[in-house]
Amino acid sequence: MTVQQRGEETRERILQAAMASFAERGYDGTPVNTICAEAGVSKGAFYHHFSSKQGVFLELLHGWLSGMDEGLADLQTERLEIPEQLMAMTNMICDVFDAAGDQLPMFLEFWSQAAHDPEVWEATRAPYRRYRAFFAAMIEAGIAEGSIRPVDPDTTARVIVSLAVGLVLQGLLDTEGADWGRVTTGGVRMLLEGISTEERP
Amino acid sequence: MTVQQRGEETRERILQAAMASFAERGYDGTPVNTICAEAGVSKGAFYHHFSSKQGVFLELLHGWLSGMDEGLADLQTERLEIPEQLMAMTNMICDVFDAAGDQLPMFLEFWSQAAHDPEVWEATRAPYRRYRAFFAAMIEAGIAEGSIRPVDPDTTARVIVSLAVGLVLQGLLDTEGADWGRVTTGGVRMLLEGISTEERP
Repeated sequence: MTVQQRGEETRERILQAAMASFAERGYDGTPVNTICAEAGVSKGAFYHHFSSKQGVFLELLHGWLSGMDEGLADLQTERLEIPEQLMAMTNMICDVFDAAGDQLPMFLEFWSQAAHDPEVWEATRAPYRRYRAFFAAMIEAGIAEGSIRPVDPDTTARVIVSLAVGLVLQGLLDTEGADWGRVTTGGVRMLLEGISTEERP
Repeated sequence: MTVQQRGEETRERILQAAMASFAERGYDGTPVNTICAEAGVSKGAFYHHFSSKQGVFLELLHGWLSGMDEGLADLQTERLEIPEQLMAMTNMICDVFDAAGDQLPMFLEFWSQAAHDPEVWEATRAPYRRYRAFFAAMIEAGIAEGSIRPVDPDTTARVIVSLAVGLVLQGLLDTEGADWGRVTTGGVRMLLEGISTEERP
C-alpha cells in the first residue's frame, strides 16, 4: 500500500466513523476524540485530513450530494420526455431508502446543525436552491416540448423538492410504516396527473 | 396573583426560555441550568414543574401539535366538500410560516432528537401517523362524496403529509427564498388537480 493509498484509507475511515457517530450520538454529542477512537486514528492523523469536526461534517454532506447529482445527470442523458424523466427519478429516491441503513439519520443532523451553524446552514441551503433550479429547468423544458401544462416552473420545482424532502423525512422516522418506494411513485404520479398534458385515465 | 397563577406563569416562562435556547443552541447545547438562568427561575422551581429537560421538550411538542389539531378540527366543522377543505388547510400552513419567528427551528430539533432518543422518536412519530390517518379518512370521504377520484387513501395521505413537512422544512431553511404561502397553495392545487374528479381548466 502506497503512502497515498494509506492516506485515502485513513480519510475514508474517519468519514465512516464520524457518520456512524453523528447518526448515533448526534453532532454535538460527538467530539473529535470519539471520531478518532472509533476510526482507530490519532488526533494528528485526523487534523492532517480535516481542519475540524465541521469539516468532516461538510465533507459528508458533499459526498451525499455528489451521489445524487451523478444519478440525476445519468437520467438526463437518456432523452426521455420530461414526465418520464421525473418518474425515473423517483427510483432514485427509492434507492436512497434502500441504501438508508446508517446513513440517513445524518440527514436530520444536517438540518439540525443548519439551525445553529451559519456555515452548515449555507451548505445545507445551497443544494436545495440548486435542485429547485434543476427541476424548474426541467418543467420549463416539459412546457416547451408540450408534455407539461403551462404551470409556474418555480412553484412546481419547490413542490417537487418539498415532496422529496418530506418523503425522505417520513421514511426516516417511520422505516417500517410503509413501502415508501411505492408511496413515492404514487406521489409523483399524482403530481404528474396534475401537471402533465396527458389525458387522465 | 394567586399561587396557582404564579405557578402557571413560571411554567410558561420555563417553556419560553427552553424553546428560545433549543432553537439557538440546540437541545444538547442547552443544559437545565441555562433554561433556569434564562427563565429567571430556581432549579427547584424547574423540577417542580418538569421532571427533566426531555419533559420540557415533549411539552413543547405537544403544545405545538395541539394548536394544529384545533385548527384542523375547526375546518372540519365548516361542512365544505373535501377538496375545498384541503385548500382551506393550506392556509393553516401559511399561518405556521407567519407565526414562525423563534418557534420553527424547534421543529428541526424534534427530528434531530428523535434520531437519538427513543422516547422523543415515539412522540415525534406518533403525530405523523395520526395526521396520515386523518388525511386518509378525508380522502375516503372525498371518494365517497364523489369529489375525489378512487385513489389509494393511504398513499395519498402520505403524499399530503410529505408535502406539508417538506414545505415547512424548506421554508425554515430558506425563509427569504420565496413566498412559501403561495408555493403551498400552488402545491396543494397541483395535487388536487391530480386527484379530484373536477375537470381540469
